[in-house]
Amino acid sequence: MVPNLSNDPAAYPVAPTESPVLTRLAQVISSRRGQSPESSYVAKLLAKAPDAALKKLGEEATEVVMAAKDGTPDRIVSEMADLWFHSLVVLVQHGLHPNDVLLELARREGISGLDEKASRIEK
Amino acid sequence: MVPNLSNDPAAYPVAPTESPVLTRLAQVISSRRGQSPESSYVAKLLAKAPDAALKKLGEEATEVVMAAKDGTPDRIVSEMADLWFHSLVVLVQHGLHPNDVLLELARREGISGLDEKASRIEK
Amino acid sequence: MVPNLSNDPAAYPVAPTESPVLTRLAQVISSRRGQSPESSYVAKLLAKAPDAALKKLGEEATEVVMAAKDGTPDRIVSEMADLWFHSLVVLVQHGLHPNDVLLELARREGISGLDEKASRIEK
Amino acid sequence: MVPNLSNDPAAYPVAPTESPVLTRLAQVISSRRGQSPESSYVAKLLAKAPDAALKKLGEEATEVVMAAKDGTPDRIVSEMADLWFHSLVVLVQHGLHPNDVLLELARREGISGLDEKASRIEK
Repeated sequence: MVPNLSNDPAAYPVAPTESPVLTRLAQVISSRRGQSPESSYVAKLLAKAPDAALKKLGEEATEVVMAAKDGTPDRIVSEMADLWFHSLVVLVQHGLHPNDVLLELARREGISGLDEKASRIEK
Repeated sequence: MVPNLSNDPAAYPVAPTESPVLTRLAQVISSRRGQSPESSYVAKLLAKAPDAALKKLGEEATEVVMAAKDGTPDRIVSEMADLWFHSLVVLVQHGLHPNDVLLELARREGISGLDEKASRIEK
Repeated sequence: MVPNLSNDPAAYPVAPTESPVLTRLAQVISSRRGQSPESSYVAKLLAKAPDAALKKLGEEATEVVMAAKDGTPDRIVSEMADLWFHSLVVLVQHGLHPNDVLLELARREGISGLDEKASRIEK
Repeated sequence: MVPNLSNDPAAYPVAPTESPVLTRLAQVISSRRGQSPESSYVAKLLAKAPDAALKKLGEEATEVVMAAKDGTPDRIVSEMADLWFHSLVVLVQHGLHPNDVLLELARREGISGLDEKASRIEK
């Protein structure tokens, strides 16, 4: 579950695997649950069936692909932000925290680092 | 461009918008450029046309959707890690840094925060 | 280019690779080009940048995946119809005809048939 | 269910909503069920969990988007053929026939035709 952290950024320590921005956004998204759909875009998205956020995820991935094909850095950044934002909505909907994903990435990087050393020794 | 940061995590300060894990992974991905395609998965992916990474992004977004439909938290985390990892590959291919995306998200959150206050005052 | 066929279905012969429904829809879509965006959904879609139809294609593919995960035949058919319809829009936007795709599929099926026979003889 | 039609194309009449190529491919795909995964690509795909075909659908939709962005007609046709082919695999996996989708499209076209007339009268 998304922890019920304080709104004061200084109140939570930054673990090495944590991204303050992603944590903050997950908090904001989480706080929108149960709010009136008219109050914000996220409240509206969360009030719909879970498929609505997944549909947006598929749509935003397509937009990243199109921006990358166009090769326009600003649009790649903007569409990627949309993709990551809707990723956070999907995570929150399933009681998950962005840290879960960052920890998984850190774990793999560690494994990959070891793999790489192992493969170097093998050679 | 992906900055040529030291491999020592202590060597770079963590700005509030930075995710050490994402930065570290972007460094690793960036370091794979020009390496033998046989040396690692990322080197192989980067050696192909840029479309290869975009194809993976579309595929991984589909896998997140399927894991979310199944409602299995472990697989959602794992597939989301795949999606974010390939997002980093796409960013690196376009000379972008994960911080560019995190800054964009932080910028929007600030705007949204202001919006929210404004809408509260309006009411 | 989409041929300027008569609106009378009896006016064009059905070649073995042709689908009257897909041909008719491609005609309808093609006829919407240049019309007022307010006149129809397709006119509105065609009036936008080509990315709009591609975005819909990505979105509809995601919807097919979700309907298939839910295992509801009616929704699979309905979302697949959406996916194929937007496929036709993309084809029309690039001066292509559904027959081009059906001919490609027929060509592959022929090759695959031969392949299969060949592999049976080899064994 | 995919009807167990004869392999002789002359044996089944072409209904106005039918595409002989799509019907034939659905028959071929259907006949691959239960065959050794080594015997063909489709047998291999069908032997996997249903998610494998859905993953391919998402991947092929991304490839259509990339081909369309590149504006190369041959690749658009080829990738669209891949997308439609994997659409047929998904339909077969759910006991559906391409005609189900073509009938749905025909039904909508009829409705849209009526809609259009209605909107013309309203003006």
